[in-house]
Amino acid sequence: MIWVIGHKNPDTDSIVSAIVYAKKINAKPARAGKLNPETEFVLQKFGIEAPELKEKIEKNEKVVIVDTNNKEELIPIEGEIIEIIDHHRLFGNLSTANPIEVCIKPVGSTSTIIAERFINNLTKEEAGLLLSGILSDTVIFKSPTTTEKDKEIAKKLAEIAGIENIESFGIELKSKASQLSDNPKENVLRDFKITEINNTKFGIGQVEIIGYEKVMERKQEYLEAMEEIRKEKNLDFVLFMVTDIIDEGTKLLIVGENPEKIAKAFEKELKDGYIYLPKVMSRKKQIMPVLYEKFK
Amino acid sequence: MIWVIGHKNPDTDSIVSAIVYAKKINAKPARAGKLNPETEFVLQKFGIEAPELKEKIEKNEKVVIVDTNNKEELIPIEGEIIEIIDHHRLFGNLSTANPIEVCIKPVGSTSTIIAERFINNLTKEEAGLLLSGILSDTVIFKSPTTTEKDKEIAKKLAEIAGIENIESFGIELKSKASQLSDNPKENVLRDFKITEINNTKFGIGQVEIIGYEKVMERKQEYLEAMEEIRKEKNLDFVLFMVTDIIDEGTKLLIVGENPEKIAKAFEKELKDGYIYLPKVMSRKKQIMPVLYEKFK
Repeated sequence: MIWVIGHKNPDTDSIVSAIVYAKKINAKPARAGKLNPETEFVLQKFGIEAPELKEKIEKNEKVVIVDTNNKEELIPIEGEIIEIIDHHRLFGNLSTANPIEVCIKPVGSTSTIIAERFINNLTKEEAGLLLSGILSDTVIFKSPTTTEKDKEIAKKLAEIAGIENIESFGIELKSKASQLSDNPKENVLRDFKITEINNTKFGIGQVEIIGYEKVMERKQEYLEAMEEIRKEKNLDFVLFMVTDIIDEGTKLLIVGENPEKIAKAFEKELKDGYIYLPKVMSRKKQIMPVLYEKFK
Repeated sequence: MIWVIGHKNPDTDSIVSAIVYAKKINAKPARAGKLNPETEFVLQKFGIEAPELKEKIEKNEKVVIVDTNNKEELIPIEGEIIEIIDHHRLFGNLSTANPIEVCIKPVGSTSTIIAERFINNLTKEEAGLLLSGILSDTVIFKSPTTTEKDKEIAKKLAEIAGIENIESFGIELKSKASQLSDNPKENVLRDFKITEINNTKFGIGQVEIIGYEKVMERKQEYLEAMEEIRKEKNLDFVLFMVTDIIDEGTKLLIVGENPEKIAKAFEKELKDGYIYLPKVMSRKKQIMPVLYEKFK
């Protein structure tokens, strides 16, 4: 059995990439956690079943990994990794016994890479799924991770999927994503990545919402939830990116022994537990490199 | 400045990959060490200059890495890695701050990957270089690392390069490779890879020659040279693959605290410091996986 699976705390890009690629190579898609409301909306819209929840890849199983190359973000793998397709930085913590296929490209989403590969051979539903992956990960092309390739492929996918207005479909998608739960901890963990840089462990969550106030009105509760997560997961810092897709900026909540150190890395002063970062929307392209530079 | 460079102890595949890819992307090829006799023959045959020797990638320089993804095999890199093209197993010791292009494929040579990408746009000389890279790394298609893709691409390259008999060109190439120096230590180090598996450090050299006796007649001197290398480089084991491309087998010389442990991993008994492995020609595909399985 060959599985195709993305990272833990799956986002839309990782789920749709797994679904479409699995169909193309006659494998089975899986998910490494609970679907978020945006992804649920997408699957419902295109009438596609949610992938099976997997907690481990067994010894006799094979797996294709999509949308990550970071061991920390994967379920335990006792079987064989046969391929990796991703658009994140090289983490350098995953090794294999044999040569395998690895395709990493600096584009806005894994969906872009998979769509490009099969662009002449996609059903309406597959195109819709992959378009959703692109729009979700690039925040409707507003994220600085966006490339010309993403826009070009998205246009072709929209044609195949019969979606006339990409922008308004994107906003519909993102408004689902901005439906926060009542539980701050759940929201922080919804899209949460753990990275270790030179023995300092970071957990970084992100919500992309319409209007900061949805989170900022309950800031104190969020900071407490973040501190709880920090202790539970044994992290040095927990950062929470509250990204407003209309303002195109981020309020970054920070907890840790010395949160000022993070604020300083961004040349800001910490006030009330957060810093405001105008024009910052991407964890990967605008938060991670700064931390990496500071802590490496 | 963008450099394209392969691994230390460069072989023909790493050198020709760097030369051709650099030309295609308007970068500059470099080498991470002395050329071996086979590579010298190839460059001379196609009238191509040897790449510049580099000992370090400086802070303000960019680099494309070809034919390895193992940090241990690279010169020090203070600048930015912008791309990796390779056909080896994922080592998992190289990380980047930003997303980059990574293309790893389980084919017989890096030359195959580069040739495929530019197959409609190669000069006679470029085709000749890449064909040499394929023939060298696949040992004229005899190595088990060989894929159908290597053969298919080699055929096209031979046409472009105007080489009528691929086989006999391959043997000419390999006979240059089998010209050993008088110095056993030099021969062991000529194509030498260091790998660490779970805190055990291996150094594995290989020569591909016509007739075992060229080495085996001086076996004692080789074992002594290997022991010297082991101490100098602080390794647990040094293995030396004496591969006869006509017999299509390998005599594996072993030194270390407990060389029997290696022999046992291959289900052989150590005799006179070596074991005979019929049909074994590939370090990557037939030696490394066994060690990996045993020591991981």
